[in-house]
Amino acid sequence: MSCVASRSAQPLRGDGAPRVIVAGATGFAGALAAHLLWRHPGFELVALTGRSERGRRLDDLYPRYRVPLAIEELDLGRLQDIDAAVVAYPHAAAAPTVAALRERGARVVDLSADFRLASLATYERWYGVHPRPDLIPQSVYGLTELHREAIAGAALVANPGCYPTASLLAVAPLARAGLIADVVIDAKQGISGAGRVFDETTHLSMAGENIVPYKVAAHRHAPEIEEQLALLDPARPDLKVQFQAHLVPLDQGEMASCYVTPSRPVTADELRELFADAYTREPFVEVLGVPPGVREVRETNYCRIYAASDGHTGKVLVFSAIDNLWKGTSSQAIQNLNLMFGLAETEGLS
Amino acid sequence: MSCVASRSAQPLRGDGAPRVIVAGATGFAGALAAHLLWRHPGFELVALTGRSERGRRLDDLYPRYRVPLAIEELDLGRLQDIDAAVVAYPHAAAAPTVAALRERGARVVDLSADFRLASLATYERWYGVHPRPDLIPQSVYGLTELHREAIAGAALVANPGCYPTASLLAVAPLARAGLIADVVIDAKQGISGAGRVFDETTHLSMAGENIVPYKVAAHRHAPEIEEQLALLDPARPDLKVQFQAHLVPLDQGEMASCYVTPSRPVTADELRELFADAYTREPFVEVLGVPPGVREVRETNYCRIYAASDGHTGKVLVFSAIDNLWKGTSSQAIQNLNLMFGLAETEGLS
Amino acid sequence: MSCVASRSAQPLRGDGAPRVIVAGATGFAGALAAHLLWRHPGFELVALTGRSERGRRLDDLYPRYRVPLAIEELDLGRLQDIDAAVVAYPHAAAAPTVAALRERGARVVDLSADFRLASLATYERWYGVHPRPDLIPQSVYGLTELHREAIAGAALVANPGCYPTASLLAVAPLARAGLIADVVIDAKQGISGAGRVFDETTHLSMAGENIVPYKVAAHRHAPEIEEQLALLDPARPDLKVQFQAHLVPLDQGEMASCYVTPSRPVTADELRELFADAYTREPFVEVLGVPPGVREVRETNYCRIYAASDGHTGKVLVFSAIDNLWKGTSSQAIQNLNLMFGLAETEGLS
Amino acid sequence: MSCVASRSAQPLRGDGAPRVIVAGATGFAGALAAHLLWRHPGFELVALTGRSERGRRLDDLYPRYRVPLAIEELDLGRLQDIDAAVVAYPHAAAAPTVAALRERGARVVDLSADFRLASLATYERWYGVHPRPDLIPQSVYGLTELHREAIAGAALVANPGCYPTASLLAVAPLARAGLIADVVIDAKQGISGAGRVFDETTHLSMAGENIVPYKVAAHRHAPEIEEQLALLDPARPDLKVQFQAHLVPLDQGEMASCYVTPSRPVTADELRELFADAYTREPFVEVLGVPPGVREVRETNYCRIYAASDGHTGKVLVFSAIDNLWKGTSSQAIQNLNLMFGLAETEGLS
Repeated sequence: MSCVASRSAQPLRGDGAPRVIVAGATGFAGALAAHLLWRHPGFELVALTGRSERGRRLDDLYPRYRVPLAIEELDLGRLQDIDAAVVAYPHAAAAPTVAALRERGARVVDLSADFRLASLATYERWYGVHPRPDLIPQSVYGLTELHREAIAGAALVANPGCYPTASLLAVAPLARAGLIADVVIDAKQGISGAGRVFDETTHLSMAGENIVPYKVAAHRHAPEIEEQLALLDPARPDLKVQFQAHLVPLDQGEMASCYVTPSRPVTADELRELFADAYTREPFVEVLGVPPGVREVRETNYCRIYAASDGHTGKVLVFSAIDNLWKGTSSQAIQNLNLMFGLAETEGLS
Repeated sequence: MSCVASRSAQPLRGDGAPRVIVAGATGFAGALAAHLLWRHPGFELVALTGRSERGRRLDDLYPRYRVPLAIEELDLGRLQDIDAAVVAYPHAAAAPTVAALRERGARVVDLSADFRLASLATYERWYGVHPRPDLIPQSVYGLTELHREAIAGAALVANPGCYPTASLLAVAPLARAGLIADVVIDAKQGISGAGRVFDETTHLSMAGENIVPYKVAAHRHAPEIEEQLALLDPARPDLKVQFQAHLVPLDQGEMASCYVTPSRPVTADELRELFADAYTREPFVEVLGVPPGVREVRETNYCRIYAASDGHTGKVLVFSAIDNLWKGTSSQAIQNLNLMFGLAETEGLS
Repeated sequence: MSCVASRSAQPLRGDGAPRVIVAGATGFAGALAAHLLWRHPGFELVALTGRSERGRRLDDLYPRYRVPLAIEELDLGRLQDIDAAVVAYPHAAAAPTVAALRERGARVVDLSADFRLASLATYERWYGVHPRPDLIPQSVYGLTELHREAIAGAALVANPGCYPTASLLAVAPLARAGLIADVVIDAKQGISGAGRVFDETTHLSMAGENIVPYKVAAHRHAPEIEEQLALLDPARPDLKVQFQAHLVPLDQGEMASCYVTPSRPVTADELRELFADAYTREPFVEVLGVPPGVREVRETNYCRIYAASDGHTGKVLVFSAIDNLWKGTSSQAIQNLNLMFGLAETEGLS
Repeated sequence: MSCVASRSAQPLRGDGAPRVIVAGATGFAGALAAHLLWRHPGFELVALTGRSERGRRLDDLYPRYRVPLAIEELDLGRLQDIDAAVVAYPHAAAAPTVAALRERGARVVDLSADFRLASLATYERWYGVHPRPDLIPQSVYGLTELHREAIAGAALVANPGCYPTASLLAVAPLARAGLIADVVIDAKQGISGAGRVFDETTHLSMAGENIVPYKVAAHRHAPEIEEQLALLDPARPDLKVQFQAHLVPLDQGEMASCYVTPSRPVTADELRELFADAYTREPFVEVLGVPPGVREVRETNYCRIYAASDGHTGKVLVFSAIDNLWKGTSSQAIQNLNLMFGLAETEGLS
């Protein structure tokens, strides 16, 4: 299958539009990234690669994503004229591909965990041997709202996990103000979070009518959240985050319910001001006066947040709703790509 | 419609079988109580009452509950020969009916909140004026596993809310051991928890594909949990519980995820022993070695619990799964009725 | 609330962009029409009206539809400068509003059944007295693919029901070829088809895990389908259509399964050719080589069709999948508006 | 793992209770049969076998089915004292096991298609070579309501498919009266119908929000239905049935919508009488005055039927609702076992 033929189906792009590929387009995250890039006015999507389903067109695999490109083998020899790549491979499998792309000059947004953690030791405790630790220092953590400037200049962006995205957007304003003495994050996610995986976790007759916690007391996302919180509140480098994930029976959607024990009493007014300051100018974060439902942000890049002070317990509660596949993964990758290539951050996302 | 005619349809009961009515049988909780009593070998279900749907048969309203009795007006004059009642009216509406039934000598399991709280002040802070505070002292809190002996001798049992049921079974062993310094309870429940209410909360096109927190920082169930924890750990009479409820898109099922900051470090072994001691002899509480899913307990009176110690944060995590309509409400009412009438606690429930 | 203030939030339109209102924007259909018009590059959405929820903003009622206009009373005195309206009122309630809008010169797409039927007698048999039969003759039936030219010149378009849309697109090529001797249409639809109605039909704990046929042997959509088939195959003016609707537990999506007894044997090749001829140049109808799933067309204006000849029975089977709220209702209304105002038919829809 | 140890957990059975095994207990159908037999007062469930998951307990695989037996290899040498077996293996795999069990004298209810068809030629057209055609003549078709007497005396019962069960119960009264000139059956089923299979068909993020027809114009269940209809109406041995299956997003439940062109006009009264005559004395078939929903029969052995005459088209419509795993498969197997062993037909099923 030739990229050229397919490419012609994409509405014409300007001559200078960056040429992008999606490596690993058969999974939920890669396929959505391809969908968003295909309809994006500022990028030219030139190829989709994958380790399975070769030759099958994406609009056959995912009919709703009307991308008429076929899955190809990743042929590094043909990548000379690629400007950027979204890499959607599993952890550890991603790093070598990222390295190969970087060597040929492509800028990369990596959706895996391989370059999210600054600490190699932490990475290896959770994921095993790191295939390319040498690249860690050049990576920028891609939670757009926290690292916008660094992302704009980065050649390698490590897109955050969906759980850290929802969690960090919820508690960042508190951390930055030095207010988090202790935090419990109880997250709930739809079944798409399990990915294009076929087992008891995803079978409708098993996942339906169910609520189930998983990776109890051992979730890989806690260290990712902790590293970022330490950057936000350097006075508390060792804050431990109690993070717990649950699967609930819907498709796309994620809620992070955060229970913060503040380091000092926080009034409702102060809370309102903290979150307004943090997010008023953010195009994709909305601070509400009522609790959000994940349905409100389905298939959007928005994060909706509600913060409240509990007069009874003194705790601060923050609820953060995203679409795990969109802001939690693939549309945030586009948000980052926009920044990396000098486009408007909202381009192709609203 | 005459009760007599309908009654004949129930498989014959022994002459001495207690005669029971369900007051408020049109809602989800009352209807399920009627279903359980109809098929119960030890009780004779003699009438169903309700404020709406009069004359309509329950097996028309709820076809799966094959109870061929019609909804009647509650006629106190005809209650002379009633031995017991399950009252499934809303808060405040329940108390006068409970009082009338008690005056005629019927033993009552009340599903409302009217008699759950020992403190009248606490009740009135959350629910308004109490219609019959004089009855509060004779009421016994109906969480069977905590108050079995008192329930056996009680004439008025206040069935717990579904959230306190799941939550208290989860943390009672820790409270009894004086181990709870702080606790966050994040609960998730299916849409049946909203009851037979027709609004945006329950419409499939609004509740589906959604996760939504509700009654943030203001849940009526926190004081109910706190009162019981104070009984379990008298050394901490003022422990504040951070309780938060969420609706998730399933029908029946409830998960309480409890995050306990222990008053001292707790080892995994100690934890195992505490929960084994508490529940090994309980017929309806199962302590697992893995996290439970609510699907596992659907349409049963079981509560499944998993406790873990988080080595990273030092917190103790307990997950508790019930069916909100069964153990959380109606089947626990039957469990209590069994005790009140000297039947085997598991009769009609397995 | 002033339209002017809100209007400013819509991305600037060209000076000549037709000014449109949605009358009845609080229901599912009207709200989606508003959403599509708001993001449409060729129309200026200037007001939303409704009989309830006045003053409430649509992005509060339907957060995913990011339309920052409030619901107003329909004030005919202010309609001088309105070019067009989408009317989303219930049957019989729509006609007077349509008439008032027409009198002020606005072109109208009416989503109700009031102007779908050419025969007044048929209308009154199913819907009761018609409020404005005088307008019937100027109305054009808005199934775009069948009446494109008439729609382009029409001032009043009666948007088809979602069931006739899926059904007619499925069998039109057979009718046009004079091939339908008998037809059974078994349609299945998600709960959004019941609308923003709060009752046992839509409660997740009642509609979930259910499949239920409704309006058995008495569906209003049969005459609508029959009238159109008679136009397509004038040799069979009296063909009776067996149409049956079912509700199934999803949100948006509709499948029409059509079982045609052909008037003469039809080969697979002939079938393929018939459907290719009918739809190859249609931008929103896709003829597949495999059965479609409704998920493939969710939130799109596409209709996906699969036709097969059953060698065993000799019948012709056609399966047609649409999103009942999109191609079945609101996006087809936009498709029609595009034609009525000389825009590209696909504008704002892909 | 020893059967003996586990067996002791089953509530004590009378000395003469038939000893039963379930062969193939890891799938949905076998597991449910095991559950029903375990709680059945008239049978002793002595072993569960399976080709995978050996050593794993059924109450671990299916926690809601509280059967504490482990999956074993099927050891024919140990089957001397087995009275009966439910065989839940796939087509073609079942026949050799059935044969081995029959040779040792066990009576068998086979859930596969291997012995459903009287015609070997028809079987081989749809399923390939038959492993044991010699056993076909001794098999009785296990649609209880149609073959009750033969089942009572049978040693080998071929349990019907779930689609034929719902379909035949719907149209049998019409066939017996010689009234079916033509019939279209449009069936819809929940995802459990796909079984414990992990693929795109069952993934919640793919099967959810979907409706999809499958095996178009080529369903194996048509010949099974046709063979039975020919027995009911010997005057029409060659009636062709148009049968079409669809998957809809629920767990358990099946609706067969049947559109019959009658051989002569049928009045509503005649229809009522036909169905009353057929089913008034049937314990598990209920003829309603309104269309049934599948939710009404969930987790029961009931079939609910509604028949109507369409005055407009002259067709007769029959809707039949069952739980595909219960009456459609496993509880009907128990109903048949009850008959085979002289127990009350409803024993263990209500």
